[in-house]
Amino acid sequence: MASLRIREAKEGDCADIIRLIRELAEYEKLSDQVQISEEALRADGFGENPFYHCVVAEILPAQGEPQGPQVVGYGLYYFIYSTWKGRNVYLEDIYVMPEHRGQGIGSKIIQKVAQVALAKGCTQLRLAVVDWNKRAMDLYKTLGARDLTEAEGWHSFRFEGEAMRELAGR
Amino acid sequence: MASLRIREAKEGDCADIIRLIRELAEYEKLSDQVQISEEALRADGFGENPFYHCVVAEILPAQGEPQGPQVVGYGLYYFIYSTWKGRNVYLEDIYVMPEHRGQGIGSKIIQKVAQVALAKGCTQLRLAVVDWNKRAMDLYKTLGARDLTEAEGWHSFRFEGEAMRELAGR
Repeated sequence: MASLRIREAKEGDCADIIRLIRELAEYEKLSDQVQISEEALRADGFGENPFYHCVVAEILPAQGEPQGPQVVGYGLYYFIYSTWKGRNVYLEDIYVMPEHRGQGIGSKIIQKVAQVALAKGCTQLRLAVVDWNKRAMDLYKTLGARDLTEAEGWHSFRFEGEAMRELAGR
Repeated sequence: MASLRIREAKEGDCADIIRLIRELAEYEKLSDQVQISEEALRADGFGENPFYHCVVAEILPAQGEPQGPQVVGYGLYYFIYSTWKGRNVYLEDIYVMPEHRGQGIGSKIIQKVAQVALAKGCTQLRLAVVDWNKRAMDLYKTLGARDLTEAEGWHSFRFEGEAMRELAGR
């Protein structure tokens, strides 16, 4: 029988990770926004001071099956800093291919990230979810997350592109 | 005449930074939440691979005045990673002492952070604001930021403490 493995990504996984990043952007109908390349992902995540970390979900074929392992999901995270609590973790992306959903793979990815965070002495794991993705919002709440936008009124703001250049040039 | 300087923080500024972190938490009536120490701030921000960066706003006395420079505000930020755009900046805290507000010091702090971000090749500057802080929300909008919670429905989620340990232990 095929089995599932959640593991830390290696540099050789970048081709799979960029494939899934593009799938996620297509799901959000925003694939024209993806400006990252496989080369940048390799350089940024697997150098001496990596800018991000990643776990992948991989389906291992049963013994005797001809195909190799297949990466079907990923969770990409990095370390952030709370001025109250110190070092913490932010889960930037989490994605499971549609045909592999409903088996708890997403929960296992987020669990693995939580394990890494705890092992590094972090006490918080943050992430953002868009409100039309009820399924994801319900999942995170069931897993014990607090919706800070709902509970405390936090709004996310972003300066980007021209607005950021104008801000810097004032 | 006294003048204002916005500059990158040095390790010796940590006593001032922790004072302002505590003031900000008191303003939010949550000062019991501050678990960080000056020692941790020094170690985390000024080692070989700093977990955060900081700019401070400092009032320089006029020539002949007896007092030294006074740190009256700070902006604490770190680098994050977008799977669409690469390396970006997150402004975790921005604070100006109440008696020094209304002079554009907050705008100058955020401008300095934007300059650093651009110089490092970033295209985005993100931050979060709580909705009862209308003054801050209006300022960021005026400066060109987009409210992603309002415009696109993004909610911030957080696992913390016991919820995070349960998640990891499942």
